[in-house]
Amino acid sequence: MIYVGIVGYGTIGSGVYEVLGTNKDYIAKRAGEEVAVKYICDLRDFPGDPAEKLITHDFNDIVNDPEVKVVVETMGGLHPAYEFVKKALESGKSVCSSNKELVAEYGAELLALAKSKNLNFLFEASVGGGIPIIRPLNQALTSDEIVEIRGILNGTTNYILTKMSKEGESFEEALKGAQDLGYAERNPEADVEGFDPCRKIAILTSLAYGKQVDFEDIHTEGITKISKEDIIYAGAMNAAIKLLGSSRLENGSVYAQVSPIMVDTDHPLYGVNDVYNAIFLRGESLGEVMFYGKGAGKLPTASAVAADVVDAIKHKGTNIITIWDKEKIKLGDFGEMTNTFFVRVPAGEKEKARELFDIRREINAPAIDGEFAFLTSAMKEKDFEEKAAKLNVISRIRTAF
Amino acid sequence: MIYVGIVGYGTIGSGVYEVLGTNKDYIAKRAGEEVAVKYICDLRDFPGDPAEKLITHDFNDIVNDPEVKVVVETMGGLHPAYEFVKKALESGKSVCSSNKELVAEYGAELLALAKSKNLNFLFEASVGGGIPIIRPLNQALTSDEIVEIRGILNGTTNYILTKMSKEGESFEEALKGAQDLGYAERNPEADVEGFDPCRKIAILTSLAYGKQVDFEDIHTEGITKISKEDIIYAGAMNAAIKLLGSSRLENGSVYAQVSPIMVDTDHPLYGVNDVYNAIFLRGESLGEVMFYGKGAGKLPTASAVAADVVDAIKHKGTNIITIWDKEKIKLGDFGEMTNTFFVRVPAGEKEKARELFDIRREINAPAIDGEFAFLTSAMKEKDFEEKAAKLNVISRIRTAF
Repeated sequence: MIYVGIVGYGTIGSGVYEVLGTNKDYIAKRAGEEVAVKYICDLRDFPGDPAEKLITHDFNDIVNDPEVKVVVETMGGLHPAYEFVKKALESGKSVCSSNKELVAEYGAELLALAKSKNLNFLFEASVGGGIPIIRPLNQALTSDEIVEIRGILNGTTNYILTKMSKEGESFEEALKGAQDLGYAERNPEADVEGFDPCRKIAILTSLAYGKQVDFEDIHTEGITKISKEDIIYAGAMNAAIKLLGSSRLENGSVYAQVSPIMVDTDHPLYGVNDVYNAIFLRGESLGEVMFYGKGAGKLPTASAVAADVVDAIKHKGTNIITIWDKEKIKLGDFGEMTNTFFVRVPAGEKEKARELFDIRREINAPAIDGEFAFLTSAMKEKDFEEKAAKLNVISRIRTAF
Repeated sequence: MIYVGIVGYGTIGSGVYEVLGTNKDYIAKRAGEEVAVKYICDLRDFPGDPAEKLITHDFNDIVNDPEVKVVVETMGGLHPAYEFVKKALESGKSVCSSNKELVAEYGAELLALAKSKNLNFLFEASVGGGIPIIRPLNQALTSDEIVEIRGILNGTTNYILTKMSKEGESFEEALKGAQDLGYAERNPEADVEGFDPCRKIAILTSLAYGKQVDFEDIHTEGITKISKEDIIYAGAMNAAIKLLGSSRLENGSVYAQVSPIMVDTDHPLYGVNDVYNAIFLRGESLGEVMFYGKGAGKLPTASAVAADVVDAIKHKGTNIITIWDKEKIKLGDFGEMTNTFFVRVPAGEKEKARELFDIRREINAPAIDGEFAFLTSAMKEKDFEEKAAKLNVISRIRTAF
């Protein structure tokens, strides 16, 4: 019997408790041993909850119990999650975490600590919820350099964009609907401003290139400025607007960004709607692969954490090699990154726009007048900014085509 | 330095040699050691080939060389691949194979042999080419019972069906085109009759349930009877016809089949076109996940084999637990499997069809007259067969909606 301690009994933590219980037999078979939760550490009490008797307010109960071999960290946030995870690893326990803030900030350090102790620090659920993506990046895509990652990494914003696209709702209407359904927080900033997917693309890029990418260094735009008109134009081009976390190897430099991107019907991310997430990768030899699934939600995310628990047990005494050095990648200067843009300007600036930009295609959308809209050819961000500053740009969205 | 021996220098084998060479530095970093090919065993000579000097006609050169730690088997077919792989494992070498026939037939036995020797038998490339699916099934989806697998597992037939759907070609025309492009063999039977995806769904189902599924026990239909009219009807329902390998847990029994299935635009498999493959899985807690990528082709497949080589090196001295017992799963009787059907009968049999079937929807397709087409509600295969025998069915295709 292997004992587990869970730290943080919120949505994910209680989901992990549920999955480890419901799928007990199945998990015992896969892990090679029976698995049981011995403690749940939370500041709150849960009278009447099936796990009531396992609750402790003192994390030391878990750390000091030599029977506990695996600690599940599902509390979120940086502190005290960081201190708890460090202490657990120092006490000889492997840790499985769903905490993207923690992983983005301290992933390299905690992996090194786990390695030095012949333990494991696993975090499959920190990106893409239930979608297996961390493990494939670390274990399956190891023979070929990843040249591009593009991911729909946030279910809330994908739901909002899907509603805007399919129902013609405005951003505000769709956000309200997402909040009513519990998909969006009352304070939706982390989602709609792109901070959540920013941490996730930082984690994926760190793993793809084996060095630290700081999320603060990633150019990040959210979806708050996307208008009904932008959606109509996208439709006219058989495209959809998605909030993508992207990174790319270009002339030896790694570039990263989070921003709304138009993808057309030929792109596998086009059909990824509602709260679904998907991560699209391109390898030099491998070509394109994509991983798709529920990027959030109690049970999908908890399943991923529980699978980490199984993996930690299977690898008792063996560190699963994960390449993620503390040394920082020097990200390419965002101004040098090459992108293509969809641009709207007032109709009166048509000639000026034609002079300034190498226009690939002019776009007409039904029922939108008084504007001139076009697609640029590929150009550097800084060149775009310079030219766009000479016009009264109504909106501009990058494209993947 | 870790030395590798490659057995079979055809498309995949030469691809593995190429990937291990081109991505040498990247692979050394991921594997923790440099990797070099020491022998390539093939009956042929390859004068002028960059690997010419590594060629041996004697497999014993590889087996008897203690410096070779990993054997790559890319010869295909059952014999002598089976004898070679067994001998390699018995000699203390891990084996990475892309050979679906071998894995479907001897997977359980070779895994047990590898385990008994603290070695690894890895076969990521045997299903889905470059798509990581074996490893996720074995290592990432371990906390939750898989209740459904549906996969587009054969790129050739998916290419043919895509051509029929998008260009209005007949089966014969599309097959000819696929042959001209080298996507289909001169003798296309293994693909178009579904034998290839049958072995692949047998492998996936064995891994999902941890016991042997014999491919011979799986009800298998190919795509040779799909007509232009069927494609037109599918279009009228906003659906596409895909050749799917499927298995499903239903009332405690595992059911499996390979057959053309109509999927509608809401299904993530709908947009998987051309030579792409995708595997869609549903877990009780996890919900839906899908893995997408190039299911064949020299470099994508070789990348997957090379990633297995990296994994074998990373796990030197440690068996990666894989649950696949020799004991057979008793598959549910195909006649008891529940499916829904799209059915076409002559117009004169409309009333009779209405009496016989619980019709969910009647379908009209533009420019097709003299027929009555409909969708049944979910029913057992044997009940469908019994009723269909009373009509002159023009065609019937199962649906996923």
